[in-house]
Amino acid sequence: MTRPDACKPVALSRSYRLLNHGPVTLVTSAHEGRRNIMSASWAMPLDFDPPKVAVVIDKNTFTRELIEGSGRFALNIPTRALAQRVLAAGSSSGRESDKLAELGFEVFEGSTAGLPLVAGCAGWLECRILPEVALQARHDLFLAEVVAAWADPAIFAEGRWHFGDESQRTLHYIAGGAFFATGDAFEI
Amino acid sequence: MTRPDACKPVALSRSYRLLNHGPVTLVTSAHEGRRNIMSASWAMPLDFDPPKVAVVIDKNTFTRELIEGSGRFALNIPTRALAQRVLAAGSSSGRESDKLAELGFEVFEGSTAGLPLVAGCAGWLECRILPEVALQARHDLFLAEVVAAWADPAIFAEGRWHFGDESQRTLHYIAGGAFFATGDAFEI
Repeated sequence: MTRPDACKPVALSRSYRLLNHGPVTLVTSAHEGRRNIMSASWAMPLDFDPPKVAVVIDKNTFTRELIEGSGRFALNIPTRALAQRVLAAGSSSGRESDKLAELGFEVFEGSTAGLPLVAGCAGWLECRILPEVALQARHDLFLAEVVAAWADPAIFAEGRWHFGDESQRTLHYIAGGAFFATGDAFEI
Repeated sequence: MTRPDACKPVALSRSYRLLNHGPVTLVTSAHEGRRNIMSASWAMPLDFDPPKVAVVIDKNTFTRELIEGSGRFALNIPTRALAQRVLAAGSSSGRESDKLAELGFEVFEGSTAGLPLVAGCAGWLECRILPEVALQARHDLFLAEVVAAWADPAIFAEGRWHFGDESQRTLHYIAGGAFFATGDAFEI
């Protein structure tokens, strides 16, 4: 599909705010005609400018092969409306089949050719991995620079979250199929 | 103070669940008679068994000196009741004064001698840094093994969160003094 109206650019200097509150992510990747999606809770910002992220990608995953092949991945920030598919994306491998299609995810492209972004998410970070091969091997940890960022302006605009209703809230994973929705905002 | 009743051991195998949902942390540290506290949102689990964590500690912080000196730190998981002091702990340096005392934090010891744990938190992870010196230098990123874990059994028990009221909820930092409280739990 073409890039939807619900996906607008986010300034790179503010892109860390998509991940700062610790939401669940969906990691998408593609390489040599294959593509995949997996859920990941172990992702966080690493730096502001240029924006960088850190994410744990287990060495047994098909996503790992695609990321090591292409050097690219995207962190998609799903909403509660997608929670069931987020759980499913973390429960099976995409090695033998196209998990994105199987789970009914619609995807589009941002600015990285061939890298699928998941429609219906609140935000998206397109990332290029940093050459930290030893770290990847020892700890399954990938460091990456954010090269493009996007958000649904109905949910995130001017660097701030604006959850309209429960279904738009982002997710925080507990364990065993249980999540928290992002709760109420307050200021000190 | 002595270890309070509101601090009970958590099995190391479940300790990642204290951090899995992406809450704000308070990083405490001590070395050669000095101690400090700073808030940190950029912390996440890195592995299950043995449990490991990753946390970003800027090279300009006094906490960085203490951690590099002692090889230890604790991740304290504060509740909403502490939000004002969490913000304050991220807004000043402890290099010139004892920030823990200044901000009125009460502390106690867990199993690491001399390492302060903050009373009133929901959970605590005592950590020993891994020898990843190049990573620390290049990316301000510390990897560490969790050597002891604790939680307030009124809030976290049997590996699950049980927030009794709003003041017990954990925090997720947005920016500029704004937080989310951890929201409602749901299962798929």
